[in-house]
Amino acid sequence: MAAPHFGSDNVSGVAPEILEALAAANAGGVDSYGGDALTGSLDARFAEVFETDVSVLPVGTGTVANDLAVSFIAPPWGAVYCHRDSHIVVDEANGPEFFSGGAKLADLPGEHGRLDPATVRAAATAFDPTDVHHPMRAGLSITQATERGTLYSVDEVAALGALAAELGLAFHMDGARFANAVAALGCAPADIAWKAGVDILSFGATKNGCMAVEALVVFGDRRGEFDTLRRLHKRAGQLFSKMRFFAAQLDAYLADGRWLAWAGHANAMARRLADGLAAIDGVELLHPVQANEIFLKMPEAAFERMKTTGFGFYPPGPAGDIRLVTAFDTDAGDVDALIAAAGGC
Amino acid sequence: MAAPHFGSDNVSGVAPEILEALAAANAGGVDSYGGDALTGSLDARFAEVFETDVSVLPVGTGTVANDLAVSFIAPPWGAVYCHRDSHIVVDEANGPEFFSGGAKLADLPGEHGRLDPATVRAAATAFDPTDVHHPMRAGLSITQATERGTLYSVDEVAALGALAAELGLAFHMDGARFANAVAALGCAPADIAWKAGVDILSFGATKNGCMAVEALVVFGDRRGEFDTLRRLHKRAGQLFSKMRFFAAQLDAYLADGRWLAWAGHANAMARRLADGLAAIDGVELLHPVQANEIFLKMPEAAFERMKTTGFGFYPPGPAGDIRLVTAFDTDAGDVDALIAAAGGC
Amino acid sequence: MAAPHFGSDNVSGVAPEILEALAAANAGGVDSYGGDALTGSLDARFAEVFETDVSVLPVGTGTVANDLAVSFIAPPWGAVYCHRDSHIVVDEANGPEFFSGGAKLADLPGEHGRLDPATVRAAATAFDPTDVHHPMRAGLSITQATERGTLYSVDEVAALGALAAELGLAFHMDGARFANAVAALGCAPADIAWKAGVDILSFGATKNGCMAVEALVVFGDRRGEFDTLRRLHKRAGQLFSKMRFFAAQLDAYLADGRWLAWAGHANAMARRLADGLAAIDGVELLHPVQANEIFLKMPEAAFERMKTTGFGFYPPGPAGDIRLVTAFDTDAGDVDALIAAAGGC
Amino acid sequence: MAAPHFGSDNVSGVAPEILEALAAANAGGVDSYGGDALTGSLDARFAEVFETDVSVLPVGTGTVANDLAVSFIAPPWGAVYCHRDSHIVVDEANGPEFFSGGAKLADLPGEHGRLDPATVRAAATAFDPTDVHHPMRAGLSITQATERGTLYSVDEVAALGALAAELGLAFHMDGARFANAVAALGCAPADIAWKAGVDILSFGATKNGCMAVEALVVFGDRRGEFDTLRRLHKRAGQLFSKMRFFAAQLDAYLADGRWLAWAGHANAMARRLADGLAAIDGVELLHPVQANEIFLKMPEAAFERMKTTGFGFYPPGPAGDIRLVTAFDTDAGDVDALIAAAGGC
Repeated sequence: MAAPHFGSDNVSGVAPEILEALAAANAGGVDSYGGDALTGSLDARFAEVFETDVSVLPVGTGTVANDLAVSFIAPPWGAVYCHRDSHIVVDEANGPEFFSGGAKLADLPGEHGRLDPATVRAAATAFDPTDVHHPMRAGLSITQATERGTLYSVDEVAALGALAAELGLAFHMDGARFANAVAALGCAPADIAWKAGVDILSFGATKNGCMAVEALVVFGDRRGEFDTLRRLHKRAGQLFSKMRFFAAQLDAYLADGRWLAWAGHANAMARRLADGLAAIDGVELLHPVQANEIFLKMPEAAFERMKTTGFGFYPPGPAGDIRLVTAFDTDAGDVDALIAAAGGC
Repeated sequence: MAAPHFGSDNVSGVAPEILEALAAANAGGVDSYGGDALTGSLDARFAEVFETDVSVLPVGTGTVANDLAVSFIAPPWGAVYCHRDSHIVVDEANGPEFFSGGAKLADLPGEHGRLDPATVRAAATAFDPTDVHHPMRAGLSITQATERGTLYSVDEVAALGALAAELGLAFHMDGARFANAVAALGCAPADIAWKAGVDILSFGATKNGCMAVEALVVFGDRRGEFDTLRRLHKRAGQLFSKMRFFAAQLDAYLADGRWLAWAGHANAMARRLADGLAAIDGVELLHPVQANEIFLKMPEAAFERMKTTGFGFYPPGPAGDIRLVTAFDTDAGDVDALIAAAGGC
Repeated sequence: MAAPHFGSDNVSGVAPEILEALAAANAGGVDSYGGDALTGSLDARFAEVFETDVSVLPVGTGTVANDLAVSFIAPPWGAVYCHRDSHIVVDEANGPEFFSGGAKLADLPGEHGRLDPATVRAAATAFDPTDVHHPMRAGLSITQATERGTLYSVDEVAALGALAAELGLAFHMDGARFANAVAALGCAPADIAWKAGVDILSFGATKNGCMAVEALVVFGDRRGEFDTLRRLHKRAGQLFSKMRFFAAQLDAYLADGRWLAWAGHANAMARRLADGLAAIDGVELLHPVQANEIFLKMPEAAFERMKTTGFGFYPPGPAGDIRLVTAFDTDAGDVDALIAAAGGC
Repeated sequence: MAAPHFGSDNVSGVAPEILEALAAANAGGVDSYGGDALTGSLDARFAEVFETDVSVLPVGTGTVANDLAVSFIAPPWGAVYCHRDSHIVVDEANGPEFFSGGAKLADLPGEHGRLDPATVRAAATAFDPTDVHHPMRAGLSITQATERGTLYSVDEVAALGALAAELGLAFHMDGARFANAVAALGCAPADIAWKAGVDILSFGATKNGCMAVEALVVFGDRRGEFDTLRRLHKRAGQLFSKMRFFAAQLDAYLADGRWLAWAGHANAMARRLADGLAAIDGVELLHPVQANEIFLKMPEAAFERMKTTGFGFYPPGPAGDIRLVTAFDTDAGDVDALIAAAGGC
C-alpha cells in the first residue's frame, strides 16, 4: 500500500462507501445515457440539499465542469470576471475560452485568493456594455473555498451576488471544494449558493472521497436554459453511457451527510497540521487556513525533515511556497508525525 | 435486480473483474493526473496487445474519444471522409466539428455501414487540395465493427489504409466495438490497426464490460504529435485527477485476454439470437450479423410477444427497424427465451 | 486594358457609378465604424427596396456574409439543411462550421442546384430534435440564383419557407446573385425574401458592379436578435473603420434601380450567349439558363476556337463541364464574337 | 463637406492618390481572388520596403489582421503576452480568442503603453511550458506605435525580439500605425520588423490614407507556414473576389514613399498640436507624444472652447482623459485654430 500523500486531495483514493455504491449500482440492465432511476433521482437529491428546485448534470472532472459552466454563462464575445489565480485562468489549458468560443477571462487581483466587489465593479464598468468593440460584461466566477485555502463568508458571497445581479452578470461558483466551504462556514449549502445569487455551481466531489464525478447544479431562472447545458454536456462527451455509476457516486456522497462529515474531517486535519507547523521556528503561513489547504514557507531543513516520513509531497513553487492539503481520509496520527518530523522531534 | 436488456451493450453493468480492479487500485495515496504507476504502465500494456510501440491516453466516453481523434487528424479547414451513418456524424452532437474548430465531416454512403475505397477516392479527389476555397482533404474515419453490426475484413481495412496513405489522409478508426471485431475476425489486433495503416484508434472498453473508459491509441509517425493530443485531452477535461481508476479498468480489461473473451461471448450470443429469430416467419435480417448487433424487421405481433419477456428493448426506428444488441454478460438462456417468445412458443 | 473575361462575374471591375460614389463619399471627416450618415441611412434604403422594416449590416465578401449568416441561424449543435453544391458547403473553407462553433451543414442532393421540400423534410425529421445525441435541426439555407444558374420560382421559395416555419428552421438565402434572380423573375424583392419566409439574406453586390460589399439583411422577428449579429460582425473584422465607403457602394448600387438594370443586362447577355452556343453542333446545356451563368459541354475543338478570341475563361472541370458567366458590363458584341468563334465562323 | 475631426485617424477620408489607384485598377477583366497581376506583385513590393523576402496577404481591417495574426502564432492552448491596453485585448470583441480557438491573451501592465522585457519574462516563465494544465507560452504581441501614442525604440523592439527568441515565442507586431512609428524613429522598416525578431506584422494602411486595407506581412522562417495563413485568411472571408482593388491601395500607398510622408505629416501635426496645448494653463499631457496621438487632461472650459471650432471630437473617457489624433490630411491651420480656441484666444 502506498504511503499517505499531502500534496493534494486528489492523491487520495475513494471512500469505501463510494466503492460500495458502485457495486450496488451494478445489478442488471438499465437504460443508458442517464435514463436510469439513480440518475433520474439526482435533481431531487440535490433539491433537498439546496432547499430549492435545481437542475443537475454529472460530469467527470472539475476541468470540464468549469469549461461547461463558463460556456453556459458567457457568449463568445463576453467577459467573465474572475480571480487571477483561479483554476479557470491557470489550470484548465484554456478550456473555458475554447468551450465558450472565445469568451475572455478578465482575471483580477485579490488578496488571499478572494475577489473584492470593488475590483469587479471597476473592471465590469470600464467599458460600455453596448459597444461592440469591447468584451461585453457577462459573467462572474469565484472559487469557494478559494485557490489559497481561504473562504468567502456568507455575506461576502452575497455581496458579489448582489453586484452580479446589479450589473447583469451570471454568477458561477467553482466549488471544487464546496463541501469544505460549507463545513467550515457551518452554513446551509443554500446560503452560499442560490440565496447568495449563484446561478450555476461546479459542485465538487472527486477531491472529497469520490472516484470521478462533479455535478453542475443550476439554480433559479437559469434553469430555463438547461437544455442548452444538456447540449454542451453531451457534445463534450460527458453524457456517460453507463451514467448510473456517476449518479451512484453522487447519491452515496450526499447520503447521511457524508459529504460534510468528510470535508469537516479534512478541514480539522488542516487546522491541526497548520497549528502544529506554525509553532515551528521559521515557518510562515501565507494565507489564513480556513478549509483543507495550507500555504506556507518553511526552512529548507524542515522541509527535508518532513520528507523523511516517506509521505508524499509536491515540490515547493518557484518562490519557495509549499502547499499541503488534507483529505477525507487523512489520519491524525500521520498529521502528528509530520509535525513532529518538521519540528525535528 | 433489473431485468436483462437487449437495447444496447451499454445498458449492461460492469464485469466483476473490473469492480475488483477498482477496489484494488484504491489503496494509498498516489500522484494524481496520471502520475501513478498504473497509468504509467498503459503504454507498455497496449504495446503488448498491438505488438508495436504505441502512445495511449484514457478517456471517459466514446464521444470524447472520437471528438479528440477527429481534432487530432484534421485542421479546421480540413475534410474527414466517413460513413453517413457513423457515430461522428450522427451521434456526437457536432462534437467533432466543435473540437476540431470546424473540420467538415464529408459523409458518404456505403452498403451495410461500410465505406468503399472508390467512394472515398471520388470524394477526396473532387477538389484540388491546394485550393484554399475548398475543404482540404485531411482524414479518413471508419467504424469497426460498423454501425450496422458488420465488419471490414483485414484486407478491406488495409485497402482503405493504402488509399489514405496515397492521398495523405490521416486514418482514424472508431473502435467502440473493436474487441468484437478482433474476436470475430480472429486476427491480431495489429492486423486491423497499424498494420492496415490506422494512425489513431478509439479503443472501446465501456460497452464490453468496463464502467467508463476508452483509450486513444496512437500508432507510428503520428506519435510524434502526441503532445498535441495531450493538450487536447487535458483541455477537454479528460485528464482525470484520480486517473488510476481509469487505468485500472483498462489494465484489468486487457489482462488474461478478457477483452476478447467477453467480446467473443457477445458475438456468439448475437449469432445465436440472430439465427433463432431469422427462423421465425416474417423476420428479416437487414445486415449480415458479424459482431454483436442485429438489425432486423419483424412482424409487430412478434415484437409484442418479445416484450412479454419483461426484457428491455428500445422502440423500433421510424422505418420499423429494430436493433438488438448482446453484451459480455448476455445469458444464453435469456437469448433462448427471447427467441421462444418471439416465435410464439 | 485587359480583355473581357467569361470565367466569372467577379473578374469584372467596378461600375463607374460606384467609383463616383466612392469619390463623393470622401469629403471631410465623419465618425468612423458606421457612425456616418451614409451608413446610418442603409436601413431605410433597404426598407424601401424590401417594402418592410429591415436591419442591415455591410460586409466585405460573400464568404463572410455566409459565415455570419450561418452562425446567426444555428447553434453549434444545430444542423443547417442546404444543397450539396452550395457555396457554404464547397467554397467557404469550412468558414460556416468555424464561425458557428461547429454547426453541421447537412448537405442534400437536388436537381439543377435546387433543394426540394421533400428532401429537406426527410433530412430534418430523421432525428428527434429533443434528443441531445443528434444534430438539432436549426436552419435551412438556399442559394438564389442557384450555384447552377437556375432559379427557384416565387412559389418554390415560399414552399421552402413554409416548411422552415413548420419545422422551426431559420431560413437563410445566399443571394450572391439575388439581383439576377429578382431581375429574371420580375418579382418584387420582397416576394422571394421575407414574404417567402426568409429570415436573413446575404444580399450580393460585388459580382454585379460593386467593388467589395455585400449586405446582411435581417427580416421580421429575427431583427430582435440583431445585436448578436452586430457582435458576430465586429468580431469577424467586418466593422470597417471607414464604413462610409462600403455604405456608399450599396447606396449607389440601389439608386435609380441600377442593381436590377445591371443584373438584367447580365441575364440578357447569358441568354444571348446560351442561345448562340446551343445552336452549335455538339454543345449541350447542362442546366436551364435562368440567370447569368451557363453550364455546358462542348466539343474540345469548339472550346479551343473560343480561346482564340483572347477572352478569359476558366478551364473545364474534371467532367469536362464548362462554366461561362456574364456580368453587368458584358458587351453584346463580345458575346456575338464568342459565339461566332465557337461555331467556327 | 464635413468639418475636420480630431477624434481619430480613421475619421479621415482617403488620399486622392488612393482613389486614383482604384480607378486605374478598374480596367478590364482580370482573374479574381488574387490571381491578378497587381496582387501578384505585392510580395515584391513589400520585399523592397523591408529589404528581405516576405509573404504578404491583404485584409480589410485591423481587427481581422490581428485576429489572423494571433491565430497564426498561438495554438488554442497557448498564451500570447501582450499589453493590458492593447487592441487585441480591448478592442477586437474577443476576435483573437475566437479565431485562435481559445488562446489566452495574457495581458500585462506597462508604462505608457509599452511592455517591458522583465514583465514578459516573469509571465512567460511562471509556468512549466510542458505542463499540460497551464496555458503554454506561445506568442508575444506588441503595438507599434503603442495604444498611448508612444514608441518602442529600435533597441527596445530588438530586446523583446531577443526575449521572444530565447523563450520560443512567436513575435507579432500590431502595426496599425507602423508608418507613424517608422517615420518618427527615422529607422528602416526592417529595423523594427524582422531585424528585431518580428515574425508577423499587421501592417496598417487604412488609418494613414487608404480606404480599407491592411497587410499581413510574414518574415523569415514563419514563411514556411504561410499556407496555413492562407487558409485562415480565406476562411475569414478575406480573400476578396476583386482583390485587385485592395492590392491597388497598398501599391499606391507604398509608391514614392507616400506612406512615410503621410505618416510624417500626421506626426508633425500631433507635435504641433501637443506643444500648443501643453502651453495652456491646466493642460497635462498624459504620455509622451511620439507619433500621431495625444492623450491629455484639460480644464473642462478649455474643452468646451475647443468644441466651438465645430471640429469633431470624441467625448472624454471615464477618468476625464481626452484623446486627439492627427492624420495624413490634418491641416496646420486647423491645428492652430484648435490651439487658439483651447487657449481662449
